[in-house]
Amino acid sequence: MIDVYAFATPNSIKVLIGLEELRLDYTLHGVNVLKGEQKDAAFVALNPNAKVPVLVDTAADSERFVLTESAAILVYLAERTGHLLPESGEDRARVFEQLFFHASALSPAFGQSGFFQRFAAKPQPIAIDRFTTEARRVVTVLNGVLSERRFVAGSEFSIADIAHYGWLWRREFAGIDFDDAPHVARWFAAIDARPAVQRAVARVNALAPSA
Amino acid sequence: MIDVYAFATPNSIKVLIGLEELRLDYTLHGVNVLKGEQKDAAFVALNPNAKVPVLVDTAADSERFVLTESAAILVYLAERTGHLLPESGEDRARVFEQLFFHASALSPAFGQSGFFQRFAAKPQPIAIDRFTTEARRVVTVLNGVLSERRFVAGSEFSIADIAHYGWLWRREFAGIDFDDAPHVARWFAAIDARPAVQRAVARVNALAPSA
Repeated sequence: MIDVYAFATPNSIKVLIGLEELRLDYTLHGVNVLKGEQKDAAFVALNPNAKVPVLVDTAADSERFVLTESAAILVYLAERTGHLLPESGEDRARVFEQLFFHASALSPAFGQSGFFQRFAAKPQPIAIDRFTTEARRVVTVLNGVLSERRFVAGSEFSIADIAHYGWLWRREFAGIDFDDAPHVARWFAAIDARPAVQRAVARVNALAPSA
Repeated sequence: MIDVYAFATPNSIKVLIGLEELRLDYTLHGVNVLKGEQKDAAFVALNPNAKVPVLVDTAADSERFVLTESAAILVYLAERTGHLLPESGEDRARVFEQLFFHASALSPAFGQSGFFQRFAAKPQPIAIDRFTTEARRVVTVLNGVLSERRFVAGSEFSIADIAHYGWLWRREFAGIDFDDAPHVARWFAAIDARPAVQRAVARVNALAPSA
């Protein structure tokens, strides 16, 4: 039995897409981060890092396995099922390369870009310039990758595509568009059209009707 | 044959520690990021993301495999050798959880904290507060993890310890100390004392004698 604690966020959607693509049953529990519910004691007991998403996998013998970090959850689900992550070789290493490029470069650039444009109590012009420039730069790098590959890690759809989709789905938050990134635009449209992705988007959006 | 392109940086050291722990032979090529050499055309041809480290693994048939992202390189080396990453189960998932916690939380918090304290052309007080607070918070989270585990992902030394060591080795840049994180201090001293870690530190420091 799989329980997922999530909200309509760039990292949460990744786990739902993984579950939908792999056709695994799960129960979705909303954690309203707009109300700060991820800092409630009960949730912090699940994830001391106070972030969604969290996956709880309960085996037949009732042993509970609690896992955090959206990309680690994707790796776990892929290895559990034998799908969406090549078993060996260069293709496999490319998936990890893109997962870590997303986690360490694209994700923080988009998140900080949005924060300093929208939420900082006073304008921080150097911070705004730094993160908007970096967000555009990483999209340009990804556009180069996708000029040579159908999917971000090669010729096959993988968990790395799911990871990148998460933040690119919420690109408006970071002030990003695809006007100068036609290969990213082509790739995004293809991922966005997948039935499993549409199901995941509908499920997380239902958690935050006004989002 | 393995070639590594690196400098005395938090991400570069991870790859050297991995190679030294696994007793793999490699040739080290310095890329002086203080002089901006990671933006030279020859290097960008190797890594379009213009970052060290890069690993080039040349097989007996001369086919070259170029891999970027320090954590992806650690996963590749661990799977290539069958060491420093459990083969399955919860222990394996914990390693990925910590690798992604490092990549998405600790690493950007430390990097941005250091940048806004040291390099921003004008003071950005909200940015300084945001990133120094976040850097301290992630160290507190890690301290909680290490209050219950000998190593960051469990009872065995793994590539996740190597990843966390990279930025904690350069914690002064972020203005971080271990005064309120005794479990992190105990863990760091143990990792720092490993002969392979000492060899890696000596090799990257030799690339930047004044660093």
